Amino acid sequence: MANQIYLFSLICLSVLLCQSYTVSSFQKSLDLAKPCKRFVLHLHDIAYDGDNAANATSAAIVNPLGLGDFSFGKFVIMDDPVTMDQNYLSKPVARVQGFFCYHGKATYDAWIAWTVVFNSTQHKGAFTIMGENPFMEPTRDLPIVGGTGDFIMTRGIATLTTDHIDGSKYFRVKLDIKLYECYH
Amino acid sequence: MANQIYLFSLICLSVLLCQSYTVSSFQKSLDLAKPCKRFVLHLHDIAYDGDNAANATSAAIVNPLGLGDFSFGKFVIMDDPVTMDQNYLSKPVARVQGFFCYHGKATYDAWIAWTVVFNSTQHKGAFTIMGENPFMEPTRDLPIVGGTGDFIMTRGIATLTTDHIDGSKYFRVKLDIKLYECYH
Amino acid sequence: MANQIYLFSLICLSVLLCQSYTVSSFQKSLDLAKPCKRFVLHLHDIAYDGDNAANATSAAIVNPLGLGDFSFGKFVIMDDPVTMDQNYLSKPVARVQGFFCYHGKATYDAWIAWTVVFNSTQHKGAFTIMGENPFMEPTRDLPIVGGTGDFIMTRGIATLTTDHIDGSKYFRVKLDIKLYECYH
Repeated sequence: MANQIYLFSLICLSVLLCQSYTVSSFQKSLDLAKPCKRFVLHLHDIAYDGDNAANATSAAIVNPLGLGDFSFGKFVIMDDPVTMDQNYLSKPVARVQGFFCYHGKATYDAWIAWTVVFNSTQHKGAFTIMGENPFMEPTRDLPIVGGTGDFIMTRGIATLTTDHIDGSKYFRVKLDIKLYECYH
Repeated sequence: MANQIYLFSLICLSVLLCQSYTVSSFQKSLDLAKPCKRFVLHLHDIAYDGDNAANATSAAIVNPLGLGDFSFGKFVIMDDPVTMDQNYLSKPVARVQGFFCYHGKATYDAWIAWTVVFNSTQHKGAFTIMGENPFMEPTRDLPIVGGTGDFIMTRGIATLTTDHIDGSKYFRVKLDIKLYECYH
Repeated sequence: MANQIYLFSLICLSVLLCQSYTVSSFQKSLDLAKPCKRFVLHLHDIAYDGDNAANATSAAIVNPLGLGDFSFGKFVIMDDPVTMDQNYLSKPVARVQGFFCYHGKATYDAWIAWTVVFNSTQHKGAFTIMGENPFMEPTRDLPIVGGTGDFIMTRGIATLTTDHIDGSKYFRVKLDIKLYECYH
């Protein structure tokens, strides 16, 4: 037994020594099927049209330039409620705050920076989804690049599915959140 | 001794073998009290009002839309000096370059993307703080998502405290920088 | 032999035990010369001038404010082709989608958020370069903060070199991509 404790101590020391020589560049395979945390949310966006200030959750701050027919240049700031199911009237569990802008000349295409903000008794904290969102595709993967609170230092992938569009008035996006680095 | 060297080699080899089977998804607890690097900075922002071009360090490029009473839609680009103490006249040690935009309908609220840029004999490099900044709260945690130079590949948390506001003319923010991944 | 298998098992178990106590804050030295993936791309940007809708790949959505002489406040959205060599007419292998804005009062300076999007039989996926880009410098390092597809969860450094500028009409940037975290 004493021998094994001695061996264990030696191994721990050796591991620390070994690791101090490890360079940080690394190649790993990620088991996509096994995130350390996973949940699904639904985002609801009601665009401001000048008359719906009470209900609007987003607003264009710059309008399309006339370059192509797909809103190139439109820039939208948002503060959208997020629910656990698809019903807009369900109690919000979080909000998505940030912006998106259109950059497609030949099709609709957007770049997004969305922070998912939780502030309830159950969850506090936030994480940010950021990058190119080719929203005419059925589903899109976007990186989650950082977080705070319950999501401190997290990284992962958000799979986005736009499952309802009502012209330019309303859209709903399913956010399938898969975190592969969890520190909390 | 020879036996221990042999054992050490075996352990190192085993560690590498073991690690090559580790999937990347992981759950760890982070000791928030022990960052690998920590320092405090003070950011000073003087808003452009049309007459103060010599002193202004930021400017709104889009003004509020009239959606609510909290500047929803205002978008500001900045190049703010950063000092070691609270005195605006102290020698800047870095600059914060980037932007922020207002997205609150019922309170003031902002989304920020701030790169802290060092360029002195002591420090070269930069890191970026990014995400939702509910700046009416006394303190806010925001993620640090990447860096270069002395801060290459870094990640961490910036705790922001707005400790002085002079209407829409001037604000000062304390940045408590805690890095939890250091590669330099 | 049996003894060594026993020892190997013991070491593996010990490594796992040791690692479970490791806090996540860490200090490592990164061997910059050994990225896990490296390649060079060339980005081509043709600014929209009102008359070149067919060829334009980017457009200013907000123009300079008149604060200084270096386009402070100009905000540009882009969807630029990326080629393997410097020739604009070569077949694009990817696109850079996102935006940049000018924030320099005393010199030209920009903040960028560029997602490099691959969508071919050879490569699918994207990664995002983000931060301060002092583009009057010969070369600039910027962080790569996340990715998807072939670049899932990646991090690294992009070294940017502007190797051709034709007034405000056209610029070409060499992107030297060095990834230090590879999961694919």
